[in-house]
Amino acid sequence: MRDFLPAEKARRERVLAVIRDRYRAHGFDEIETPVVEDYDRLHSGLGGDNEKLSFSILRRGLDADGIRAAADDPAALADLGLRYDLTVPLARFYASHRAELPSVFRAVQIAPVWRAERPQKGRYRQFVQCDIDVLGDATPRAEAELIAATLDTLDALGLAGATVRINDRRALDGMLATFGFADAERAGVLITIDKLDKIGPDGVAGELRERGATPAAVDAFEAFLRRPQTREYNPYGERQIRKSLPEGIPDEVIAHLVGLGEAVAAARPASDASEIPLVFDPFLVRGMGYYTGTIFELAHPSVSYSLGGGGRYDGMIGRFLGSDVPAVGFSIGFERIVDLVEAGEDAAATAVVLVHDADVPVAELLALKASFLAEGARVRLERRTKNLKPTLERAVSDGYTEFATVASGAERSSLTLKPLA
Amino acid sequence: MRDFLPAEKARRERVLAVIRDRYRAHGFDEIETPVVEDYDRLHSGLGGDNEKLSFSILRRGLDADGIRAAADDPAALADLGLRYDLTVPLARFYASHRAELPSVFRAVQIAPVWRAERPQKGRYRQFVQCDIDVLGDATPRAEAELIAATLDTLDALGLAGATVRINDRRALDGMLATFGFADAERAGVLITIDKLDKIGPDGVAGELRERGATPAAVDAFEAFLRRPQTREYNPYGERQIRKSLPEGIPDEVIAHLVGLGEAVAAARPASDASEIPLVFDPFLVRGMGYYTGTIFELAHPSVSYSLGGGGRYDGMIGRFLGSDVPAVGFSIGFERIVDLVEAGEDAAATAVVLVHDADVPVAELLALKASFLAEGARVRLERRTKNLKPTLERAVSDGYTEFATVASGAERSSLTLKPLA
Repeated sequence: MRDFLPAEKARRERVLAVIRDRYRAHGFDEIETPVVEDYDRLHSGLGGDNEKLSFSILRRGLDADGIRAAADDPAALADLGLRYDLTVPLARFYASHRAELPSVFRAVQIAPVWRAERPQKGRYRQFVQCDIDVLGDATPRAEAELIAATLDTLDALGLAGATVRINDRRALDGMLATFGFADAERAGVLITIDKLDKIGPDGVAGELRERGATPAAVDAFEAFLRRPQTREYNPYGERQIRKSLPEGIPDEVIAHLVGLGEAVAAARPASDASEIPLVFDPFLVRGMGYYTGTIFELAHPSVSYSLGGGGRYDGMIGRFLGSDVPAVGFSIGFERIVDLVEAGEDAAATAVVLVHDADVPVAELLALKASFLAEGARVRLERRTKNLKPTLERAVSDGYTEFATVASGAERSSLTLKPLA
Repeated sequence: MRDFLPAEKARRERVLAVIRDRYRAHGFDEIETPVVEDYDRLHSGLGGDNEKLSFSILRRGLDADGIRAAADDPAALADLGLRYDLTVPLARFYASHRAELPSVFRAVQIAPVWRAERPQKGRYRQFVQCDIDVLGDATPRAEAELIAATLDTLDALGLAGATVRINDRRALDGMLATFGFADAERAGVLITIDKLDKIGPDGVAGELRERGATPAAVDAFEAFLRRPQTREYNPYGERQIRKSLPEGIPDEVIAHLVGLGEAVAAARPASDASEIPLVFDPFLVRGMGYYTGTIFELAHPSVSYSLGGGGRYDGMIGRFLGSDVPAVGFSIGFERIVDLVEAGEDAAATAVVLVHDADVPVAELLALKASFLAEGARVRLERRTKNLKPTLERAVSDGYTEFATVASGAERSSLTLKPLA
């Protein structure tokens, strides 16, 4: 977990303000839930592998006997836990408040989550997630609104040119069925397919054979993987989607994927179909077990890793509500994005450092500060030191733009502002 | 702990944005620390009564033997805990990062804290604290900058007219010494004095006698409490401060309180000394044990309870750093303030609900939405239902201002926007 010093905190808040503004413009409404949820809810199976990484809150009021008893039932030690994602809390929130929400509810959540990851570069135990979700809309409009809002947000952050890779869990299932993989082996097969970008068709076929997957199915799948056109995803459209898939994929799945593309094209008008920022990828898997339909991943030409992703999880809300509600979400990787965004400052704001001699009376300093504040400026007081350089450099990194030196008796009108840096 | 629905979340974010903007203008720099701190640090005695209310995080990887062993040492169950305030984390932060911070560091922290309070009206187990602190400045300038920033922030939130009650722990100590209370009984005496506003001079004197406080000291103190001029605090200034205190208060304490008033008067120019928003209250106590000098409390004419408070805690940083650093902080009660602030909306923003027939193609809807977004508007799509009233009422509470109905084939130019509400 990390401390954020002023310059980094200011940068994070600026990025968050842009994200909030864009999502809000796209009709998404921000909500907030407590960081803590019931232990049982966090361990109900919906969190996948993240459940194992969750931090639990010690039950209060346990006496020695209670602690001893917990040796046989460690779950008795905890009644609450820190959330490891924003999806489980959203499902709980929606089940609690459905009557107070629009029939199609577009939610924004921007908040920290916690996972007991092993310390490694780029992985933190506390990090911010930015999720948007559409609950109550089974049509491709939901995916299209998520994708348009996400791409618009990246544009506003100076990260234009992003694309979204799309697939559908039902298309994956249909593909595996077509090739003859048995139901019981499909989960394992997907784990291997997920490595296609890293290990290539040879690696995938080899690993499937090592796993002991049905040999005829592996042969058929390997032949399909080696078809030259399979990896030509663009332009996005019905012809390309059908060409990228084997026979046997349900028409409704194809229709959903096609409708999604038409809607995104309408939301982001382009002169040429190849400019539609979608890529159909029949081998995109995404790890979470709760996805039931479309899945997507956000890519940007400046980086090799994904900047976010999401998908449809129509079954999850039903676990809390009793009746199923269509749901789809898109999560952007805030910690990765904040590192890519140029620092930038509010160009308009004047920010002044007043460097004063030690003998200037406090009341004079405060009166000067008040006069700058009244002009709409941001003001920092700094006592003059022998070497001013580190003080002024730090002011620059904190976003200050001008400075003036102040001696005792100085008036506002006699101060000369000089640019910093 | 609470869920925040869209209207309330938007309101909270608007209030936070104003607070951030004003504190930043006053030269305070926002930082952020993890919500979790080491268990030992949270239980080092600096948190006062809040330590008992802290939530602990279960140590990971405990086996049955480890759990059984913890029956005799419950602290072995936890290695981390949720912070119960922002002061202990700030002290830890400053000790870690001092070399990277200005010599006088003005910190803003706006973040949730957790306390295992019993559920009761207006008390939450997760709530937001807004703290500003000045580290490294022993002069009254520090208090004056805190007070000016706080009052300016309240002004910007539409809560003008606030006042700050001031006292100094050293003045309280001096007063108790003058009246003859023994060192050992002073902590208890302060707890009783803290009730003066509620139980009056009779109640205080009675309770002190019940406590068994030194009888002669109680008599002298009661006589002082009954002096008519004691409770006439205003206008703030040297004469009034001296008049409100018995003999025996160190001159440096009086000088600090006087300097503070002059600095606040300079920061908030007023035509009349009685308009200075300070009140000297020789009986203000404030609970936390770590205060070492000035203490203050924020009052507003619209409410009977305090809206915030703070004080000097010059000893605390030294606990982490090894060498003492002067420190003073002011915390405003965000949860109380957010309830007082008028809802308000960004007047400039156009926010449009497009109510569409069920048969309008998704691509048409998304193209319409994109056209409004391009004009800078905020857009929500809603399918037409038999009774539109609840839909439109919810839109009003979420800040939408206009609506239009959309039939299949509608163009942007043919839509008529009507005001909502």
